[in-house]
Amino acid sequence: MKYPTVLNNLIECFKKLPSIGEKSAERLALSTLTMDEEFLEMFSTSLIDVKKKIKKCQICNHLADGDLCEICKHAETRDQNTLCIVEEPKNIILFERVGTYHGMYHVLGGLISPIDGINPKDININSLIERIKNGNFKEVIIAVKPSIEGETTTLYISKLLEGLPVKVTKIAHGVPLGVEMEYLDALTLEMALEDRKDVS
Amino acid sequence: MKYPTVLNNLIECFKKLPSIGEKSAERLALSTLTMDEEFLEMFSTSLIDVKKKIKKCQICNHLADGDLCEICKHAETRDQNTLCIVEEPKNIILFERVGTYHGMYHVLGGLISPIDGINPKDININSLIERIKNGNFKEVIIAVKPSIEGETTTLYISKLLEGLPVKVTKIAHGVPLGVEMEYLDALTLEMALEDRKDVS
Repeated sequence: MKYPTVLNNLIECFKKLPSIGEKSAERLALSTLTMDEEFLEMFSTSLIDVKKKIKKCQICNHLADGDLCEICKHAETRDQNTLCIVEEPKNIILFERVGTYHGMYHVLGGLISPIDGINPKDININSLIERIKNGNFKEVIIAVKPSIEGETTTLYISKLLEGLPVKVTKIAHGVPLGVEMEYLDALTLEMALEDRKDVS
Repeated sequence: MKYPTVLNNLIECFKKLPSIGEKSAERLALSTLTMDEEFLEMFSTSLIDVKKKIKKCQICNHLADGDLCEICKHAETRDQNTLCIVEEPKNIILFERVGTYHGMYHVLGGLISPIDGINPKDININSLIERIKNGNFKEVIIAVKPSIEGETTTLYISKLLEGLPVKVTKIAHGVPLGVEMEYLDALTLEMALEDRKDVS
């Protein structure tokens, strides 16, 4: 490579990001040359700030810049009787973008997967159970992806909640909108068939 | 969005990069959370450094971290009788990667395109002609992409060099390797046909 070292360094940095290959890294690094200094200062600062300032919400484990995330911080504006359990912080963003759910969240930070060495104690299940025992939740919605890990985690959590005065549900799995039936995988079709509903 | 502000800022920064959309920006920003601090410091510094330290080589206009680029700085190791004219700095990197060309380069920084308001004086043609007049070049290879702008620029440069004791060539345009003939565009086929060679 015959770029100046400082540019090669930046290319290497971009290459470390997920799904950025050699060519893309080069293109991204070269694009910064034409950007204004103010923007690059902000980009540079943000990279450091994110690592330094972002923590986990002490209640729900969502990303937060203080002790509490934006949702737990304003819990009084939400339906505090409903708890939605998700795998990752970005799942919350998706729910919020959809905008029809107004309850609270709990981030597991992973799904149970003995084959990958992820056991119940490795994800935020203990804090979840404590939170439900001490809270006023009427319904707990498990919203994890349909997979072996997802089903295992759903089953495990629902077992732990047995006997508590809370309704445990999970989001529907089935055929998504805008998909051609012929491209559906067998497992999704099986789930969709199993969870069939009356046409009323 | 319910991410902490500092994370939203970083997402916005990634979104400003070329061909990084909403989803990719979010994924890239989230990925930095799991990276080590040392890497992020380097990334952060590189972003600022690139803008501050990268200049144009005073001889060839390639990217440089001082007055001269890595190639002009070590001109004594190169064939100083051959000059390859390219549109952009990244074209040099491609030639260097291929590794069969050992001469010098000149970066135009654009191609003549009256329709886009790019006239000969807007690109590095004057410095090119001066350089050739004052240099010892025996051959000048014009290596720009085959397009109306590329052909116009090639023609313009070759006119200016008429009468100078230097051979002016351009790279061959034709059918690239690994392409199915049926997917070739008409113009490429036309060029390939026109530039046909004897099978000896």
